[in-house]
Amino acid sequence: MAASSSLTVQTFAANFISGNGSASSQCPSNRLLSTSRTSSFSGKPLRFSSSSSSCRTKKVYLQRRGLGVTRASAVETLKKKTATDELVEKSVNTIRFLSIDAVEKANSGHPGLPMGCAPMGHILYDEVMRYNPKNPYWFNRDRFVLSAGHGCMLHYSLLHLAGYDSVKEEDLKVFRQWGSCTPGHPENFETPGIEVTTGPLGQGIANAVGLALAEKHLAARFNKPDCEIVDHYTYVILGDGCQMEGISNEACSLAGHWGLGKLIAFYDDNHISIDGDTEIAFTEDVSSRFDALGWHTIWVKNGNNGYDEIRAAIEEAKTVKDKPTMIKVTTTIGYGSPNKANSYAVHGSALGGKEVDATRENLGWSYDPFFVPEDVKSHWSQHTPDGAALEAEWNAKFSKYEKKYSEDAAELKQIASGEFPAGWENALPTYTPDSPADATRNLSQQCLNALANVLPGFLGGSADLASSNMTLMKTFGDFQKDTPEERNLRFGVREHGMGGISNGICLHSPGFIPYCATFFVFTDYMRGAMRISALSEAGVIYVMTHDSIGLGEDGPTHQPIEHLISFRAMPNIVMFRPADGNETAGCYKIGVINRKRPSILALSRQKLPQLPGTSIEGVEKGGYAISDNSTGNKPDIILIGTGSELEIAAKAGDELRKEGKTVRVVSLVSWELFEEQSDEYKESVFPAASTARVSIEAGSTFGWERYTGSKGKAIGIDRFGASAPAGKIYKEFGLTVENVIATAKSL
Amino acid sequence: MAASSSLTVQTFAANFISGNGSASSQCPSNRLLSTSRTSSFSGKPLRFSSSSSSCRTKKVYLQRRGLGVTRASAVETLKKKTATDELVEKSVNTIRFLSIDAVEKANSGHPGLPMGCAPMGHILYDEVMRYNPKNPYWFNRDRFVLSAGHGCMLHYSLLHLAGYDSVKEEDLKVFRQWGSCTPGHPENFETPGIEVTTGPLGQGIANAVGLALAEKHLAARFNKPDCEIVDHYTYVILGDGCQMEGISNEACSLAGHWGLGKLIAFYDDNHISIDGDTEIAFTEDVSSRFDALGWHTIWVKNGNNGYDEIRAAIEEAKTVKDKPTMIKVTTTIGYGSPNKANSYAVHGSALGGKEVDATRENLGWSYDPFFVPEDVKSHWSQHTPDGAALEAEWNAKFSKYEKKYSEDAAELKQIASGEFPAGWENALPTYTPDSPADATRNLSQQCLNALANVLPGFLGGSADLASSNMTLMKTFGDFQKDTPEERNLRFGVREHGMGGISNGICLHSPGFIPYCATFFVFTDYMRGAMRISALSEAGVIYVMTHDSIGLGEDGPTHQPIEHLISFRAMPNIVMFRPADGNETAGCYKIGVINRKRPSILALSRQKLPQLPGTSIEGVEKGGYAISDNSTGNKPDIILIGTGSELEIAAKAGDELRKEGKTVRVVSLVSWELFEEQSDEYKESVFPAASTARVSIEAGSTFGWERYTGSKGKAIGIDRFGASAPAGKIYKEFGLTVENVIATAKSL
Repeated sequence: MAASSSLTVQTFAANFISGNGSASSQCPSNRLLSTSRTSSFSGKPLRFSSSSSSCRTKKVYLQRRGLGVTRASAVETLKKKTATDELVEKSVNTIRFLSIDAVEKANSGHPGLPMGCAPMGHILYDEVMRYNPKNPYWFNRDRFVLSAGHGCMLHYSLLHLAGYDSVKEEDLKVFRQWGSCTPGHPENFETPGIEVTTGPLGQGIANAVGLALAEKHLAARFNKPDCEIVDHYTYVILGDGCQMEGISNEACSLAGHWGLGKLIAFYDDNHISIDGDTEIAFTEDVSSRFDALGWHTIWVKNGNNGYDEIRAAIEEAKTVKDKPTMIKVTTTIGYGSPNKANSYAVHGSALGGKEVDATRENLGWSYDPFFVPEDVKSHWSQHTPDGAALEAEWNAKFSKYEKKYSEDAAELKQIASGEFPAGWENALPTYTPDSPADATRNLSQQCLNALANVLPGFLGGSADLASSNMTLMKTFGDFQKDTPEERNLRFGVREHGMGGISNGICLHSPGFIPYCATFFVFTDYMRGAMRISALSEAGVIYVMTHDSIGLGEDGPTHQPIEHLISFRAMPNIVMFRPADGNETAGCYKIGVINRKRPSILALSRQKLPQLPGTSIEGVEKGGYAISDNSTGNKPDIILIGTGSELEIAAKAGDELRKEGKTVRVVSLVSWELFEEQSDEYKESVFPAASTARVSIEAGSTFGWERYTGSKGKAIGIDRFGASAPAGKIYKEFGLTVENVIATAKSL
Repeated sequence: MAASSSLTVQTFAANFISGNGSASSQCPSNRLLSTSRTSSFSGKPLRFSSSSSSCRTKKVYLQRRGLGVTRASAVETLKKKTATDELVEKSVNTIRFLSIDAVEKANSGHPGLPMGCAPMGHILYDEVMRYNPKNPYWFNRDRFVLSAGHGCMLHYSLLHLAGYDSVKEEDLKVFRQWGSCTPGHPENFETPGIEVTTGPLGQGIANAVGLALAEKHLAARFNKPDCEIVDHYTYVILGDGCQMEGISNEACSLAGHWGLGKLIAFYDDNHISIDGDTEIAFTEDVSSRFDALGWHTIWVKNGNNGYDEIRAAIEEAKTVKDKPTMIKVTTTIGYGSPNKANSYAVHGSALGGKEVDATRENLGWSYDPFFVPEDVKSHWSQHTPDGAALEAEWNAKFSKYEKKYSEDAAELKQIASGEFPAGWENALPTYTPDSPADATRNLSQQCLNALANVLPGFLGGSADLASSNMTLMKTFGDFQKDTPEERNLRFGVREHGMGGISNGICLHSPGFIPYCATFFVFTDYMRGAMRISALSEAGVIYVMTHDSIGLGEDGPTHQPIEHLISFRAMPNIVMFRPADGNETAGCYKIGVINRKRPSILALSRQKLPQLPGTSIEGVEKGGYAISDNSTGNKPDIILIGTGSELEIAAKAGDELRKEGKTVRVVSLVSWELFEEQSDEYKESVFPAASTARVSIEAGSTFGWERYTGSKGKAIGIDRFGASAPAGKIYKEFGLTVENVIATAKSL
């Protein structure tokens, strides 16, 4: 854990302060090998075996040496040269053919979108966006998201031309191959320069809303009349598929409500989706829908070569400060392919040798595969000094800011670097058995209010259940269009959009710690975004209350059953079910430290006692004994509980001890963290010799065999719930002290 | 299985032919007790212990006796009496106070919506809708869906006044109590008269789109110039919460595209959601959005007592035949409550005695709790003879139709009754080891094309992946606005909407067998709807292809890992992972029979051989040996596989046998079905004596302990996938014959 979190800190602090991010601009595959990715807190199995990786650590290091020089000498070359129309066309075709050639070599991928979107891609990366290719993590960079992630060769081609070390020619040649930095969909954890992980449609636009929210929030908090220290745009390209997904309507409705003026979305309107012409399923008026959502809309009718139309649209979009802008750009999918353009055939498979030749012929492209013409190369090479100069200029600006506004600068640094103030965890509340009984959702609110005061990047909210999830931070107001400096987010009843937006906030800067909330059962509505949190290493904290039949009368539509197990099986996410105040505080401690691994807290609606023996340290181990009257690690009986049922296990333990049994009561608050402990520790909790084990949890018994063993028994719920007062349901379902005792005796 | 499916058939056949549905109009809790709900195919644990249930079988039987008589004498009294304005107001207040009183007695529930929506509720159930309260399952009834399910007391009050046997006064008095027919949210499987299960927001409107699609499809297929045998409307009330959910935008975009003119939605525009005024998160222009989605929109400005406005809006909506209509009805939540109306306070909790008195005072309601004034009662009592007459008239109409169009009548009967043609399962293809290797997604297409020809209610489609999921029925065209008689559905990239719409189709008539498809990993986008399929006993068939890392280059965003286990843990759904053609056919056979239990088929993208030993009969048991060279049920080694990994297990088995071991290879195609077998059968497959067991599955190893036992080993994937050719990933992840052999030897 220490290693991993300090890695984060060092890397980003470095990026932030000196702008030297090259250490992270290489493909991370190798870097990951050298970090404690399997440590107990932010651990995840390595994505590649050590033998595999096409990344070039050595080369990157050599390049980095020259960087300082380049940057220094580049400061005066800030004015952007624009290319001649001819060179623009040539550059656009370079992008098209790099994409065509990579897909062809892999014989797998999606050439259609890059061929159609190359013009807007070129204008964005060559003329509009501000970035430093040698430091992909420069704080004030413009963000770009390819929501239509299947078209990732567009993005890889642009990063390659722009001079990112993460995408060299050899990387393009191993597109979609084992261990490459150019996987089949954009993955931020593999390819510096990729901001978020896309592919599942609609996620990217929701991430972009989160990125733009983060910028608007930081600008409002930290900019001064005499110094705009936060000032960047979020650009996104989305397709028909993204537009059809409900998550994009949810996120875009919020973007309009929040007035995210620096969010500029390009809708690649090519009329083709996988099943053919969009006429068969998608005939709504998209622009009118966005007008209704409070966006500014523009239509570029010729996206294939209407460069000036695209430029004008971006200019117009930038003049609209109080609304996000949707630029509908009508393009031809597979533009340039004489026989496959404007058809599904070019969407998701290689063109094939014959059609590649025909396309070269058609676009007058006589070059070999992967070739970048010298004039194109030399034009784009200017982005290295320009980018370095942009960052150097900003760093100088920040130094002035820091002198004049030292406190604000310190806070902003924490958010931008992920460096937490020493001792932040001491703010977390602790409890004794005498502390009043309370619902863990209320105890959670005590924790997040405590953290809000010591962690400047801590912000979040609920999907219209703040008063049930108990997620309001009392020291702050609502983030709204006109109060963007505030930190309580109001997502409305939009769980999926909430998750995608939280991922975007989290991946904007390493010091952002977004939390979001709904009823645990409604994770079913946002699972797509939660899985992307886990995959893309976005340490979102999911505050999920009403975590069982304990919610009572609302009934089976609202009562989770299989949800705990379904998340325990998901990679790189920690499923917590705390039993009381100390355990809830422990979950938050780990959730905050885990910036690269999301946490889910399943919290009770009902009151629970503060149990003797619970502790933050125990939670850090995932599972531990809260009471034990055995000696020599040979208890007669082991009772295992989680969350609201730990109390039942504890009471049953007391009764059984009265009858002379030696009983160990174990809290298994996080299976993932427990599995990451040493075999010795595991044996110390679950000795092989003690086979009389009973678990109790108000959820599916699925998977409990791992801890009860073949001779033990799991008490749980393997059916849907029911509508009745909670106590009645617990009794009818046999989740009682009596049943635990009887079951234990039956073993 | 037999018992359960025949119960379905008998019940619905009865409803359809004689209109006598009273056997099902009682609260089903008792009925369920008498049916084989735990049988292997449609089994689900009973929802109530036999001691619990407030339902009144006896009473219902007595009432039913009189039914025939009532109906006979009622034929001539068809003209609807409309109440005086005064009586309407009185009826509306009856609805309000029945809701207030029930929530108050339960001290739990949502009084706000019923108080605000009582006027539209009254007009729908008293003046507009055509139904027969004594046969809630009458085929040609108008459908009503309360998408804002938390307001269910509105619906219960209406069903009570309308004379449904499922909601008597005593049922209102046990609202939200254990075993009642009036649970905390509307549940079709508990309360006859409730069409679908709502509460999770947005599901209801998507269900309504499915119900309206079903009507439009049947009308186009079966109506004749001289006989409109299918002719009913779908009405739905949805609130701000439903409107914010992405699923509702997905479903409503399709409703507009399909031109579902008989879908009429009432948007309860009360400006209040749980977190307060919708101003904080929901400021889009909803009506303009629906215009953009291709709906006809109307605004009723006074929904609190503008009865004529509401009536006029419905009249107008009915004149628009080619578009669904969204009537925005501005109401006051908690109308009538002097101190809590128009506030969150009245949304989700009882008013409290003092405020109930103040509300009675304010609305001049001097009656006791649960009292229905005589004139209101006698007015509504007319719906019993009227409804019986409506159904009798339709039955007479159908008799004529049957004489003139016997073939169509027979098909329609099958759809309306769920009675399948004898021997339908013989249409399923069978395979031998010599049959060509093929991907199970292609074998699935062979099955669904075969079934389409013998099952008139079989229809479905994909979320824009038809050409990848292989779900097109070749003998039919696309269901579109102008070709609604066709049976291929084009959902666009709208997984969640697809699931909700499929539930609606399924619950329209018991003979509908909808299937829907996407990549298995994208079940994360539609899990909310899939869980409602399971809970609401909608036997949807989910065709989920690209079911593992076997999809290759698309990478981890597209590769399911935890999905199999996450559905195995979900109640009342069957998770299948067939290995070849015979197993795929077996899955379809069970999927079709299970009209009250949804099925998920996880299917491969890659080619698989036709394995010796696989069979439809084997699939029916969930797990079975496909090969075994042991005697006396004591194999040295048991190798367990599912889907694409069964081939690996089989090959490893052959190798180990060559080395003299006795090996049993088991296909565990459905864990749920296997768990429902007898202990004897389970022992015959997994003898306790044979502890050397190895499982192999390209997914999470979670839960496999149940079958490998503590001494066995599970080979699987407990990390995210990777982007590379499938063969390479299988090798790198150790999903190989060599690894299975080595692991088996290590035991």
